[in-house]
Amino acid sequence: MNRLSLNQRTTKRWTVAEAVDGCVRHGLEAIGLWREEVAEQGPAESAKLVRAAGLRVSSLCRGGFLTSGGVAALDDNRRAVDEAAELGAACLVMVVGGLPGVAPGEPLGAGSGSPGFSRDLAGARERVAEALAVLAPYAGERGVRLALEPLHPMYCADRAVISTLAQAVDLCLPYPVEQVGVVVDTFHVWWDPELSQQIARAGARIASYQVCDYLHPLPADVLLGRGMMGDGVIGFRPITRAVLEAGYRGDIEVEIFNADVWAADPDEVVATMKRRYTEVVIGAG
Amino acid sequence: MNRLSLNQRTTKRWTVAEAVDGCVRHGLEAIGLWREEVAEQGPAESAKLVRAAGLRVSSLCRGGFLTSGGVAALDDNRRAVDEAAELGAACLVMVVGGLPGVAPGEPLGAGSGSPGFSRDLAGARERVAEALAVLAPYAGERGVRLALEPLHPMYCADRAVISTLAQAVDLCLPYPVEQVGVVVDTFHVWWDPELSQQIARAGARIASYQVCDYLHPLPADVLLGRGMMGDGVIGFRPITRAVLEAGYRGDIEVEIFNADVWAADPDEVVATMKRRYTEVVIGAG
Repeated sequence: MNRLSLNQRTTKRWTVAEAVDGCVRHGLEAIGLWREEVAEQGPAESAKLVRAAGLRVSSLCRGGFLTSGGVAALDDNRRAVDEAAELGAACLVMVVGGLPGVAPGEPLGAGSGSPGFSRDLAGARERVAEALAVLAPYAGERGVRLALEPLHPMYCADRAVISTLAQAVDLCLPYPVEQVGVVVDTFHVWWDPELSQQIARAGARIASYQVCDYLHPLPADVLLGRGMMGDGVIGFRPITRAVLEAGYRGDIEVEIFNADVWAADPDEVVATMKRRYTEVVIGAG
Repeated sequence: MNRLSLNQRTTKRWTVAEAVDGCVRHGLEAIGLWREEVAEQGPAESAKLVRAAGLRVSSLCRGGFLTSGGVAALDDNRRAVDEAAELGAACLVMVVGGLPGVAPGEPLGAGSGSPGFSRDLAGARERVAEALAVLAPYAGERGVRLALEPLHPMYCADRAVISTLAQAVDLCLPYPVEQVGVVVDTFHVWWDPELSQQIARAGARIASYQVCDYLHPLPADVLLGRGMMGDGVIGFRPITRAVLEAGYRGDIEVEIFNADVWAADPDEVVATMKRRYTEVVIGAG
């Protein structure tokens, strides 16, 4: 249980201060923070709160969106690195962005993201590698580890052109292991026929292990298809076993985007999360 | 243009007879048929119609659903092989089924598919290999080629535990090349970082090349996210080039499940399909 971390988006209505209190109240030792909530609380105040509570910051979410934004995206990512350093986060989660000019959830050719729309997927993937060559040394100088997150292929167009763990590991290899790693998020990778081999290959590159279930059927807004562990189709134990056998010693973070979970009492959500973590994620059965 | 094939589900309201007439009227030389429509027309009558029209049958859709059905599923697949033989289809498309007891579109633990629900994804994949060991020789004896279709990972739970082209090719390898091949369907594989390498590796195993676009955002029923080529996010030319360079000499089939396409005049749909095929799928630009 001492490795269980609450990603604060699981208890979306809590501020940083409330989520820190919640972790302490429920006996958790780690928390995953989001930049938006940290900005509301203030980065310095947030850092002070987690330190005073004795919590580890298992991750800061998130940097990325490197495929459309050019120089402005790089500047924002440098700020994200600075915030991760200030918070002492174990890693900065990177959601790298989709095809250029494709806005999440918005029709093609409409909305703010549409200028520059391109179907050049291979090119978008090259842009990520180029941006990483700029950001990785910047992060390294500040003691921050970038954590590249492969997203489920259904988000390839609008959120992340990194679609498999194999691809994320390939992107890490030019950099020191403490500078660039990967996120293993069960929702995004559970379907992958190569998962166990790629987790073993990732080894010390695993910077974060995030868990939540994959609901069936998915809701109309597929972003909210993340469910409490045990409510969906994922068999967690083989994945958890592979991650631990690969040598991962960090926290296990629960990150759920789900309308029903967000509507529930956050204290009940945390209690359920603790129970399911034991029963479903690390259970021996 | 002489390799363009109309999958009859693109013009869903046409019977086999009407779709055959439509192909002839629009100068197409090939058609992809579905078992349900063939059953309505009668298999013998369907075979007579396509032969009289001089059409190639580029595929029969579909066999599969091997992970939940046991012996009954095998029997139904044997019948599908027999139908493919009678129609002279170039291949029988196999959609292999999802996790045991997960029904497409239905909540877990409800509906007819729920008995026997299991999260054992690795086990479900083994069941597919075992069923193939029974069906491949049966198909081979009747001169029918099974075509394993990797489906987009968002269908892993309920429709197909084959999620990548690499995995489909691996499953083929124990069998003669004329007995078991793969389907490359742009909708299902466009996101794959290994796509060009795996198409090259598949080589003579490519039994069918199906095209349609991937819409963004997806509709609430993700099964209907297949769009007319050019309406979505897929860059077709690099995929088509890779398939042709891999040595594929068969037909290029357009298979669209889409509420708007189904509501339109089928003759207009076919005319648009021909134009987009030239402009977007095989165009030189």
